[in-house]
Amino acid sequence: MKLSDLTSPAQLRDCSQEELKELAQEIRMGIIRTVSQNGGHLASNLGVVELTLALHRAFDCPRDRLIFDVGHQCYAHKMITGRYGQFATLRQMDGLSGFPRRDESEYDAFGAGHASTAISAAVGMARARDLMGENYKVAAIVGDGALTGGMCYEALNDAGSRKTPMMVVLNDNGMSISRNVGALSGQLTRLRVSRGWLGMKRAVSDALRKVPAAGKILHRGFLHIKNGVRNILVRDKFFTSLGFRYFGPIDGHDLEGMEMVFRRLRDMQEPVVVHVVTRKGAGFVDAEEKPEKYHGVSPFQLENGLLRGQGGRSLGKTAGEYLTKLARDHQDICVITAAMTDSAGFGSFAKAYPERLFDVGIAEEHAVTTAAGMAAGGMRPFVAIYETFLQRGYDQIVEDVCLQKLPVCFLMDRAGLGGEDGPTHHGVFGVSMLRHIPNLIVLSPRCEKELESMLDFCLSCDQPVAIRYPRAIEGDLPEYQGDFQLARWEKICDGSQGAILASSGILSECMKAVAALKKEGLDLALYNASSLTPLDENCLIQLHREGKSVFTVEEHILAGGFGSAVAEFSARWGLNPPRLMLGLHRRFVAHGARGSLLRAQGLDETGITEAIKKAVKK
Amino acid sequence: MKLSDLTSPAQLRDCSQEELKELAQEIRMGIIRTVSQNGGHLASNLGVVELTLALHRAFDCPRDRLIFDVGHQCYAHKMITGRYGQFATLRQMDGLSGFPRRDESEYDAFGAGHASTAISAAVGMARARDLMGENYKVAAIVGDGALTGGMCYEALNDAGSRKTPMMVVLNDNGMSISRNVGALSGQLTRLRVSRGWLGMKRAVSDALRKVPAAGKILHRGFLHIKNGVRNILVRDKFFTSLGFRYFGPIDGHDLEGMEMVFRRLRDMQEPVVVHVVTRKGAGFVDAEEKPEKYHGVSPFQLENGLLRGQGGRSLGKTAGEYLTKLARDHQDICVITAAMTDSAGFGSFAKAYPERLFDVGIAEEHAVTTAAGMAAGGMRPFVAIYETFLQRGYDQIVEDVCLQKLPVCFLMDRAGLGGEDGPTHHGVFGVSMLRHIPNLIVLSPRCEKELESMLDFCLSCDQPVAIRYPRAIEGDLPEYQGDFQLARWEKICDGSQGAILASSGILSECMKAVAALKKEGLDLALYNASSLTPLDENCLIQLHREGKSVFTVEEHILAGGFGSAVAEFSARWGLNPPRLMLGLHRRFVAHGARGSLLRAQGLDETGITEAIKKAVKK
Repeated sequence: MKLSDLTSPAQLRDCSQEELKELAQEIRMGIIRTVSQNGGHLASNLGVVELTLALHRAFDCPRDRLIFDVGHQCYAHKMITGRYGQFATLRQMDGLSGFPRRDESEYDAFGAGHASTAISAAVGMARARDLMGENYKVAAIVGDGALTGGMCYEALNDAGSRKTPMMVVLNDNGMSISRNVGALSGQLTRLRVSRGWLGMKRAVSDALRKVPAAGKILHRGFLHIKNGVRNILVRDKFFTSLGFRYFGPIDGHDLEGMEMVFRRLRDMQEPVVVHVVTRKGAGFVDAEEKPEKYHGVSPFQLENGLLRGQGGRSLGKTAGEYLTKLARDHQDICVITAAMTDSAGFGSFAKAYPERLFDVGIAEEHAVTTAAGMAAGGMRPFVAIYETFLQRGYDQIVEDVCLQKLPVCFLMDRAGLGGEDGPTHHGVFGVSMLRHIPNLIVLSPRCEKELESMLDFCLSCDQPVAIRYPRAIEGDLPEYQGDFQLARWEKICDGSQGAILASSGILSECMKAVAALKKEGLDLALYNASSLTPLDENCLIQLHREGKSVFTVEEHILAGGFGSAVAEFSARWGLNPPRLMLGLHRRFVAHGARGSLLRAQGLDETGITEAIKKAVKK
Repeated sequence: MKLSDLTSPAQLRDCSQEELKELAQEIRMGIIRTVSQNGGHLASNLGVVELTLALHRAFDCPRDRLIFDVGHQCYAHKMITGRYGQFATLRQMDGLSGFPRRDESEYDAFGAGHASTAISAAVGMARARDLMGENYKVAAIVGDGALTGGMCYEALNDAGSRKTPMMVVLNDNGMSISRNVGALSGQLTRLRVSRGWLGMKRAVSDALRKVPAAGKILHRGFLHIKNGVRNILVRDKFFTSLGFRYFGPIDGHDLEGMEMVFRRLRDMQEPVVVHVVTRKGAGFVDAEEKPEKYHGVSPFQLENGLLRGQGGRSLGKTAGEYLTKLARDHQDICVITAAMTDSAGFGSFAKAYPERLFDVGIAEEHAVTTAAGMAAGGMRPFVAIYETFLQRGYDQIVEDVCLQKLPVCFLMDRAGLGGEDGPTHHGVFGVSMLRHIPNLIVLSPRCEKELESMLDFCLSCDQPVAIRYPRAIEGDLPEYQGDFQLARWEKICDGSQGAILASSGILSECMKAVAALKKEGLDLALYNASSLTPLDENCLIQLHREGKSVFTVEEHILAGGFGSAVAEFSARWGLNPPRLMLGLHRRFVAHGARGSLLRAQGLDETGITEAIKKAVKK
């Protein structure tokens, strides 16, 4: 059986073990090939190839429901559920998503992107099934990293208490809990299934014997919990105390063994956990022995895990390095991350000041409130969390930080269109989510220098501040002069007939539009509206007095965003409303290269130029 | 020692046990007296009197930090930290808050209101202490109900992994885990302190022997976890597996014993949990024997726990009863609550359809995503969570519900100014938090009938809907006619010179303002803008064409709210901007009766009338 002949996972059940092994190899090759081209998650996907095959042999999808947590390990699943032919389009515009999506395939039972949601979704689905008198199976596949999120515990506690029949497959990839596997083996005696195939006793098949080099490559660092988190949750009686039956640990690369366990446990009328031990990047061992064979994947071996084609200097790194510098004199600076220390740019800080860097796991809620606690204790905490993941901490930002007006600084990396990871990873709601919260200042820098200046400002400011910035700034702008000042917008270029107001990553497109419009006889100024809350009210009043039209541009949803804030202010004080507000409409934006997405959303040079021309003509 | 002589908790250390018992009695009387006047949390506060005294004897506050989770058990703490004289002003405007507040007293180490945050705050504070070279103690006091929140687990996991020295006092009030106390007693052997005073072995003092009648009175139902949640977390090795040392259970009404434990454990250089068993409402037993003595507290014995003076019919009850009616024919209707089934009005639904009501504990994140799972499984879930607490589920609303366009309906009770509970309980951010989320419809009814009509609409609608409503509607409006229609605003009264747009609870004040303005010669229409997202765009265009000024009024923060949405729409389509946008400024609103708060914010009849007159004159 070739992968290309596989039109339904049902065909897997006709395969011999030998054929399955060949398929596994083919899947790995496919993953490596496509990821080396398109970017994506390599290690996590290589780790679950056998697990995915075993699940699809034991479960009957799409009738049965497999729910992948985070979703960054669904490549094998996609390949064997009728999407092998499209797999080369992974993460490209109009191509396959890098995450499960209900609108992409009936085999994707539940979408994902943010961590720790699968058990909750599975609990709901299993209950829906029971209430509707159906009898399909529901299984959630959850990594050990995602298990540090409080949602998992809420869901386990709920399912365990009502004895909701469902399966949780704990994909323990050994990155974060390897040293606890010993303790876990104490659970072996609890196994209710025969012992012959117990994974940990089996010799691991030759091809997968070593922890491969690829295991060290962590594109997103998502499951790479640093020293901060002990992750001993799976030890002891954690699951049984929450009402689950526990089975394991079993070898996550032993296809036959896993299948047998899943088959035996799938019909149990109570919640069960199957603890599977996998190795991230498994199967990439050849790369060590025959490096020439895998030449094409070398871009992944960049130490920082950056994707091919990702240019520009990381603003997260700028923040991390600048704070490292400041931390020498400022003993009160500390940093809190949520399982993303390196990706957020704080690797150097962690090295220089390990005692002041707290990686709390995939636990954004706790991250925000513990920062509030540190601020209440006299420290100056910087919370470095991607904009989209900080959504998890909204309530804590309101109640614990802003209501108490504690000087916590949120560093919201990956603001704007995130690109290939798609809707769950774009940072396009941040302004709407934050700008109404009392006591909170919201900023967005246009370059490294302005970001550094904003960090200085934070330290001098006795209230909470949120700084949102994209991964890197692309395009050219005149060099940033001077210091950041709150509620004061920098005039990047002058113009007599009106003004474009924009900030951060989208400014370079605006700059190009200004030049294009000038050629057509429209002379517009460009302002760097990096103080999003509060606005530069004097600037807006001045522009009104001078009779200049205002055009707002944002790489952000329009509803409740920056343009909305300008319209709101203008209405309140009787100024002319903005002539045009450009941004994202109230729709989720799919995945694709940022450039393509900007173009499609009318936010590239051409889109901005045309929209302004049209608005002016009216 | 009389309570009125107590100016600092340090004085407690000079008291004899006999004096402490008298103080405890005096505190209880004070709580009962004030709560019977002002409303508030009775049972939870009566339960922790001895615990609070023991903590303040063993710890040296304000140097040491006591952090109360949720904060609705801080009355004794307030009384013995210099606020006894003001205690009669509890929960009244400009009086003491019903929750700890850093700006009220240096003894309130961290504010609260929402559950499950104290351990996170304590972890942060303990780390700040260590980094700054100080050596005070930090203790978090957490109820067993709050322990169902995922944040607690995130914080325990983090503190346990780094061995952050701090104390968690688990206030197990026996409401939700009483049947597990037996299992817990297995932990006794782990105790490192002498056994003579072990609470569970001691005879409980006479005055507190029985579980008192007051224990059944649950004002907010916050810790009253219904059958949905088993709460066996504290059983077994839960805390030790997370890296904490566990001590207990000990008797939470044995002052001497508790003090000894706290003294012995306060200096430990690692995280410890002290498991204290208290009885909610303890000390109210006299009320059973001498009911005449406690005549004044009878208002609390209302089965529904409503406060004195709370009038109007509960909209939550309306929703609960109407859905109970619909559920007969709609087998797909199910309800999810987060430890607030009764308070949210779903007691009747729970009785009629226990298999379709899921109380998941204080676990809003899980509540939202499990609802998404149920919807993906074909059900029609209604998630009944107070507006302010739904803030916890913001990320899940975006990613799990709206991105997948699943038909989940959010019933957001307590929208608007919540009154005496203060800033952590007002529902004044909901529109700003939700209106930018793609695929989400946001509604707000003006009466029971419109709410019922909206529930019908939800069932016919294939996408997520959020309905926000206040606890009850006060004031009079013409009877609601007809059916709710999306993006169509009801004209409540006609007017030739302009229109007020408003929704829900604030409409009656607007109605009065319309009458007052008419007397002064200004003839305004009043629209029920119950479709908040989408707006009634035709209505806005029509008003513009007729040259009518628009005045928006909302019991909600202005930034990003309803008026902002109207301003945004007007700017986008070149309509006249709203002449006036009335609402809350970007500041947190303190506690107080809703009427007083509306007046203070300029949102009562007079405030609205004057503001409109002023705007028209300009």
